[in-house]
Amino acid sequence: MERIDTTVSPRYAQIPTFMRLPHDPAPRGRDVVVIGAPYDGGTSYRPGARFGPRAIRSESGLIHGVGIDRGPGTFDLISCVDAGDIDLTPFNMHIAMDTAQRRLAELLADNAAFLMLGGDHSLTLAALRAVSAKHGPLAVLHLDAHSDTNPAFYGGEYHHGTPFRHAIEEKLVDPQRMVQIGIRGHNPQPDSLDYARGHGVHIVTADTFADLGNDAATRLVRDIVGDAPLYVSVDIDVVDPAFAPGTGTPAPGGPSSREVLALLRGIGDLRPVGFDVMEVSPLYDHGGITSVLATEIGAELLYQYARAHVQEHA
Amino acid sequence: MERIDTTVSPRYAQIPTFMRLPHDPAPRGRDVVVIGAPYDGGTSYRPGARFGPRAIRSESGLIHGVGIDRGPGTFDLISCVDAGDIDLTPFNMHIAMDTAQRRLAELLADNAAFLMLGGDHSLTLAALRAVSAKHGPLAVLHLDAHSDTNPAFYGGEYHHGTPFRHAIEEKLVDPQRMVQIGIRGHNPQPDSLDYARGHGVHIVTADTFADLGNDAATRLVRDIVGDAPLYVSVDIDVVDPAFAPGTGTPAPGGPSSREVLALLRGIGDLRPVGFDVMEVSPLYDHGGITSVLATEIGAELLYQYARAHVQEHA
Amino acid sequence: MERIDTTVSPRYAQIPTFMRLPHDPAPRGRDVVVIGAPYDGGTSYRPGARFGPRAIRSESGLIHGVGIDRGPGTFDLISCVDAGDIDLTPFNMHIAMDTAQRRLAELLADNAAFLMLGGDHSLTLAALRAVSAKHGPLAVLHLDAHSDTNPAFYGGEYHHGTPFRHAIEEKLVDPQRMVQIGIRGHNPQPDSLDYARGHGVHIVTADTFADLGNDAATRLVRDIVGDAPLYVSVDIDVVDPAFAPGTGTPAPGGPSSREVLALLRGIGDLRPVGFDVMEVSPLYDHGGITSVLATEIGAELLYQYARAHVQEHA
Amino acid sequence: MERIDTTVSPRYAQIPTFMRLPHDPAPRGRDVVVIGAPYDGGTSYRPGARFGPRAIRSESGLIHGVGIDRGPGTFDLISCVDAGDIDLTPFNMHIAMDTAQRRLAELLADNAAFLMLGGDHSLTLAALRAVSAKHGPLAVLHLDAHSDTNPAFYGGEYHHGTPFRHAIEEKLVDPQRMVQIGIRGHNPQPDSLDYARGHGVHIVTADTFADLGNDAATRLVRDIVGDAPLYVSVDIDVVDPAFAPGTGTPAPGGPSSREVLALLRGIGDLRPVGFDVMEVSPLYDHGGITSVLATEIGAELLYQYARAHVQEHA
Amino acid sequence: MERIDTTVSPRYAQIPTFMRLPHDPAPRGRDVVVIGAPYDGGTSYRPGARFGPRAIRSESGLIHGVGIDRGPGTFDLISCVDAGDIDLTPFNMHIAMDTAQRRLAELLADNAAFLMLGGDHSLTLAALRAVSAKHGPLAVLHLDAHSDTNPAFYGGEYHHGTPFRHAIEEKLVDPQRMVQIGIRGHNPQPDSLDYARGHGVHIVTADTFADLGNDAATRLVRDIVGDAPLYVSVDIDVVDPAFAPGTGTPAPGGPSSREVLALLRGIGDLRPVGFDVMEVSPLYDHGGITSVLATEIGAELLYQYARAHVQEHA
Amino acid sequence: MERIDTTVSPRYAQIPTFMRLPHDPAPRGRDVVVIGAPYDGGTSYRPGARFGPRAIRSESGLIHGVGIDRGPGTFDLISCVDAGDIDLTPFNMHIAMDTAQRRLAELLADNAAFLMLGGDHSLTLAALRAVSAKHGPLAVLHLDAHSDTNPAFYGGEYHHGTPFRHAIEEKLVDPQRMVQIGIRGHNPQPDSLDYARGHGVHIVTADTFADLGNDAATRLVRDIVGDAPLYVSVDIDVVDPAFAPGTGTPAPGGPSSREVLALLRGIGDLRPVGFDVMEVSPLYDHGGITSVLATEIGAELLYQYARAHVQEHA
Repeated sequence: MERIDTTVSPRYAQIPTFMRLPHDPAPRGRDVVVIGAPYDGGTSYRPGARFGPRAIRSESGLIHGVGIDRGPGTFDLISCVDAGDIDLTPFNMHIAMDTAQRRLAELLADNAAFLMLGGDHSLTLAALRAVSAKHGPLAVLHLDAHSDTNPAFYGGEYHHGTPFRHAIEEKLVDPQRMVQIGIRGHNPQPDSLDYARGHGVHIVTADTFADLGNDAATRLVRDIVGDAPLYVSVDIDVVDPAFAPGTGTPAPGGPSSREVLALLRGIGDLRPVGFDVMEVSPLYDHGGITSVLATEIGAELLYQYARAHVQEHA
Repeated sequence: MERIDTTVSPRYAQIPTFMRLPHDPAPRGRDVVVIGAPYDGGTSYRPGARFGPRAIRSESGLIHGVGIDRGPGTFDLISCVDAGDIDLTPFNMHIAMDTAQRRLAELLADNAAFLMLGGDHSLTLAALRAVSAKHGPLAVLHLDAHSDTNPAFYGGEYHHGTPFRHAIEEKLVDPQRMVQIGIRGHNPQPDSLDYARGHGVHIVTADTFADLGNDAATRLVRDIVGDAPLYVSVDIDVVDPAFAPGTGTPAPGGPSSREVLALLRGIGDLRPVGFDVMEVSPLYDHGGITSVLATEIGAELLYQYARAHVQEHA
Repeated sequence: MERIDTTVSPRYAQIPTFMRLPHDPAPRGRDVVVIGAPYDGGTSYRPGARFGPRAIRSESGLIHGVGIDRGPGTFDLISCVDAGDIDLTPFNMHIAMDTAQRRLAELLADNAAFLMLGGDHSLTLAALRAVSAKHGPLAVLHLDAHSDTNPAFYGGEYHHGTPFRHAIEEKLVDPQRMVQIGIRGHNPQPDSLDYARGHGVHIVTADTFADLGNDAATRLVRDIVGDAPLYVSVDIDVVDPAFAPGTGTPAPGGPSSREVLALLRGIGDLRPVGFDVMEVSPLYDHGGITSVLATEIGAELLYQYARAHVQEHA
Repeated sequence: MERIDTTVSPRYAQIPTFMRLPHDPAPRGRDVVVIGAPYDGGTSYRPGARFGPRAIRSESGLIHGVGIDRGPGTFDLISCVDAGDIDLTPFNMHIAMDTAQRRLAELLADNAAFLMLGGDHSLTLAALRAVSAKHGPLAVLHLDAHSDTNPAFYGGEYHHGTPFRHAIEEKLVDPQRMVQIGIRGHNPQPDSLDYARGHGVHIVTADTFADLGNDAATRLVRDIVGDAPLYVSVDIDVVDPAFAPGTGTPAPGGPSSREVLALLRGIGDLRPVGFDVMEVSPLYDHGGITSVLATEIGAELLYQYARAHVQEHA
Repeated sequence: MERIDTTVSPRYAQIPTFMRLPHDPAPRGRDVVVIGAPYDGGTSYRPGARFGPRAIRSESGLIHGVGIDRGPGTFDLISCVDAGDIDLTPFNMHIAMDTAQRRLAELLADNAAFLMLGGDHSLTLAALRAVSAKHGPLAVLHLDAHSDTNPAFYGGEYHHGTPFRHAIEEKLVDPQRMVQIGIRGHNPQPDSLDYARGHGVHIVTADTFADLGNDAATRLVRDIVGDAPLYVSVDIDVVDPAFAPGTGTPAPGGPSSREVLALLRGIGDLRPVGFDVMEVSPLYDHGGITSVLATEIGAELLYQYARAHVQEHA
Repeated sequence: MERIDTTVSPRYAQIPTFMRLPHDPAPRGRDVVVIGAPYDGGTSYRPGARFGPRAIRSESGLIHGVGIDRGPGTFDLISCVDAGDIDLTPFNMHIAMDTAQRRLAELLADNAAFLMLGGDHSLTLAALRAVSAKHGPLAVLHLDAHSDTNPAFYGGEYHHGTPFRHAIEEKLVDPQRMVQIGIRGHNPQPDSLDYARGHGVHIVTADTFADLGNDAATRLVRDIVGDAPLYVSVDIDVVDPAFAPGTGTPAPGGPSSREVLALLRGIGDLRPVGFDVMEVSPLYDHGGITSVLATEIGAELLYQYARAHVQEHA
């Protein structure tokens, strides 16, 4: 079972898996399993993230997985497959949340880590539950325009603005080792950031991120995260809508793709144990640029995992 | 409180209500209240119907409300307002269903009838509950590519394939006086049509509709419906996707807009008591053609209501 | 100066003229001159027709100009060029109307006829003024969803709903020899059709056109037009929006492209002296289907001109 | 290895194969193998058909495979898989043609028939070579706006306007048993239809098809095809661009989806041995309507195959 | 009369007003009245700004109005309503200009200030006339890719390239206290900037703005504007087309959204008395990103007004 | 033969040539001839560049050709025409390559230089062959996300990833005087950059370019290029996909339009002898922003040519 060979199959050919990885719905013994979470039942504004995993896979054939000036490619270092999607009901948030958690836990029983492709951000709670069950309270690097520490509303205990509040309440994460970067825009009142900060979460607004620059931001992340097991959650709306129009709640004034990709390059110096890239809604994308960026971010996360863990395999 | 005057305000100007009707969130004593149901939590494939009412209103300024060769315009005959939208949670189907039913019943307490703009078809169940509570078991003219008499699935008791099954079970409708027109495509097995037919529903497939022609189809509807109180539910996917691309589950091989509009012209000879136009998903529309068609259908339904009821007012 | 040879230049190559005709801004001695009228200052709803001529030209390379089973091609029979566009100010309707009339009259001084590509329908008045000055009161075959015999409104003496009212008032046309086909939808009150009918214009609604069928409709046109000099004006919104979404005021319930093209095939039995295809707004088109249809209609009109006039040249 | 169960996986979930069939790149013993041909190197106007198979697969989850009032579903009657795509170079037409032929012949060595999803129409030549090698000279039902019997041009021996000319020259088909339906528009001069008719091909233009109606057209096809092994090739541009905007050379004035689907229902009375659905270019599609229609046509072809051959299996 | 409560009505629900403000067509005693100016009759290239106010309102539900780390929200500090649109004829620029001026003056008679949502930039002249009549000659902060100090052309005295020239000629503004930021691209010859500079306007090109950085630019604005009553006019094309594709005359090489939003944060230190956000053409937008940015800018302007004036209210 | 006068013809009017230059298919004695290369047969992922020249021309009317604060306009300094397109077969890469080379050499026989508008990047090889035949081995400034020094694959000797490898092999260029800026993303393994660097090409990755800033980058280019005859090749994908979505192989993390335009301003200090702007695929563009940027780049290149060469003309 091998990746599709791009020197044989053109990038647009064959059934699309993430980065042309082998499709294995029951993976065992892998370093990282890619898993789709096609769901948008927690979306407060624009739906469509249920088509996110499919769109990302479709565009991901464009990316080879060998970065510039890096030596061996990701897939020469670690073993990855695409396990397909979690079968999530669109009709009931609680069923969906439970289904996701069980499926992710099942993957972690037999494999080292996963990269989840969303799907709306509510499902990150399922991921944190599954990863925390394996690794204990997690450090979190959370790239997003929004803090996602809101309370329930509209009768929805879980929605895409709540995962990190639940995670803090459930002690899945260590808020002192949690950093949110890119936060901006207008927030419900009383300010949802009060909750996060009140629990010790470090918030780096989009403007502060611009002022810091990449080196200082990377150091800041390192200082906060330390050597704790790290979950990295990227809401694609962390970048400005110009770079990722295909998302549910776009927020103007964000960083560029280049700035976000640069920040992710430091993760390999930490101890990453799980990843997600969420909130891609291809219904609002054009020219697939949001999906291509999501792939690039996913590819970077896989490479950083390889960089962090390859010695264990050596 | 009057309609926006198109000789004063261009069609694209001012806050958009349906057909430029007055906005009255608490209407009393009206013939027909237009009400939006922005919801897509019951959608099994393509979401976006939560934006349906907004898109229909936006395009509806194009329609004057005075048909060709008809004498007085609709709004010279009956009194209508736009009550805005029902505030439906996107996160919980049962809450949404109850909210819709309560709001519709409230409107019917103070007004004669409503025209609901969807939103996915699951909410037609709420409408049938509210209308049936006022008028007793209803005859139904249901224009759709799908029978919508499926059982629950994915753990969703209510979804956009189920409203008429629940309505039959709950005896909101008289299935012997129910006719479904435009049905086509591929159905889950065992065939969902068995349920409908088994309860006496008359199904006219898209091909049969084409073979019958409009006069015979109109007679057929009249024979089935008789003088029972009639609810008319139009799923915009009744027409071929060429005419209504902006919908959640398009089905090729359907009738044209002209054929469907011609059929609706006979409703005024019956006893209509409620209406909906559902499943407009503007995310898949282009050039607004689906929303313009939905408006035209809504305008026709209002005119037919006027034609059926104007003597009562005279 | 020859047409671009499609066996040498692919259809998408070279500077686009209509049907790859030679570009001649100062034509003399031609049978039909194609002329663009890029203007949308008379549009009451959706703008964009200023880009109509450009979009039509761009797609028109797809059409060869040799119909099925017809013998010689149009351009083997008559001599045509593309004269480019009329330079119309977007800022002042009266200046634009005068500029158009002068330019069209100039073309008719040196050439037999023109095919105008719009641009919004207001400019048909300029065309009728120019053609009528040469040929006297005109018979008109007007294909449209709207009668365009409205009075002025919003302080605009000329707009895209008025050209035929002005033409009747100015006696440019003989209303007894004028037939409007495809009329439908909702009209401002008091009914704008009263004006047209009151002056003897024959109106064939979209539904009547469907009931008549093509043979009867063709006979009807022939009876009304007779041997008078005939101007043919096609508003692309005559077809259902499914077939021409790219237009300013789409009206559901119209005929298909096949039905309209069939009707146009009878024009060569009459005495056509001028043509226009108006109201293409590419901003609302998709896949260029409206522009391709406009080209096909324009190509049919040119062929019918050839069929009507080729004996004069023989 | 089973189809994805739509009662378990929502239609938009999991890696997309055609109609959720099992993915088997090396199928053996199947009735019909679905195979993609992602290629547009033979396209004379709009490219993008290289993305056709992927788009069709993506939308095909919408179709269940159980037609109305038909008894058992297709996949209860015959055994089908999706073999993925042929690996076709985008850079060299001759290599692509040979690759396609070899792959299709390989599939036919181990399985009864294939349904090829295009990709541009040039590859139908490869299919006819492979199928004819197994079954001898073929009858052909060819639904298309264009005859595709043109000579080479631009130095391209093979392109999407030539497959049937080569097939006649190579005696892969019996032109006396070949019928082309939907032909219309403008043809290069000298008329390309002369070649086809000169070899005995029966051409039914779009207008003639409309005049005949479905029953007469079906009888005509039956009379021409008889009991010869039948290849059915559907160029999606056979329908009017309103129904299939997503294609390379759209031609206005075509039949509706309903008319084309009705015609295909007669194939099961004949002796079909191979199928293709070609020329879907999703770059020009909107709302996926062209891909959904291509799926519906493909599903109909599979059902007709089952209807024609199920006795052999019984 | 209150704002729509986003904890009750989802962001996509109810009739859309700007930032869900109450709709009051006859406001009195408000701090800032939001007013739409749906007009594009002054557009030299791409039309569509007539749909700008509607699109901005539709997307504006996404913005809560409570910025990060700012304490109370805008609408806790000042009183605002949405007065709907000015009824502007699309057919006559002079009538439109006069209508706008009268309506804006009327609003200023009963309220402190307005935020106008365009609509093309020509109408800023009407706004400057109305505001200057109340406050005397104005300082201007003008963010734009273009100087808009051109002379008349195409017979149009007023168009979207002229408002500031007229304003200088009419002494509505004090050019010595006028600063234009973001100017770039190619200008008609002789250079239109000569006029502006010749009258003392300070022009900061896009490149100079990038070199200065935000702090120096903010100081520069403060030095020029001083304590004069300040009108802020934002042409959405001030940002690079990547950030605002939905506009009439896009100019590559502009600043990012982040840079422009940062600059606007200094306005509250000055004495703002009126605002507009112009040139949003949703016909060229995608994913609504231009409208969301326009809302964010409008929200920032309202907040800055509150910051500048709240002491007066205290 | 003069440029279209934008004070007479609105920007969207008349047959579109590049920047409204005169169309002259057989130019002689010009400084720079603009020539389209509508071809995408060398594209490995997304096609559509065959429509690139047409789209660029269409949008290019927006650009006047007189930069800010520059004194005389480009076309007051040098003599330019648009020669239309090279007639390139879509069906055979070798024929296309030879056709392009012959046509470009022919232009250079009678004119000083050309600006080629693509079309995919494979044709830059034809350009380098033609220019090198006139000027000898060339220095190259190559702005691109990709190095384009790959070997052949899929049986395609020439494709859009190979031109500079062939150019080095054929000694058309001096790799020591060749600089590639913007390179990023994932490369086939073994790393394609090894080839380029191994031959002395200087590669500036996108990240390095950001770190250097414009002044240092400009100095670096000057040092490498020196006084050699310089060919400038701009692949539009050099900028981030946010700025140029309309391209075949978008690569996230690139520079902004502002950064790239600033770099090009230094070319006039060197000795430019030929230019291209490649890989615009309007099928993936939106709002024309990619084509507008390509025009702006082309306009800048023409101005820099004028700046470099005007003394020769003085």
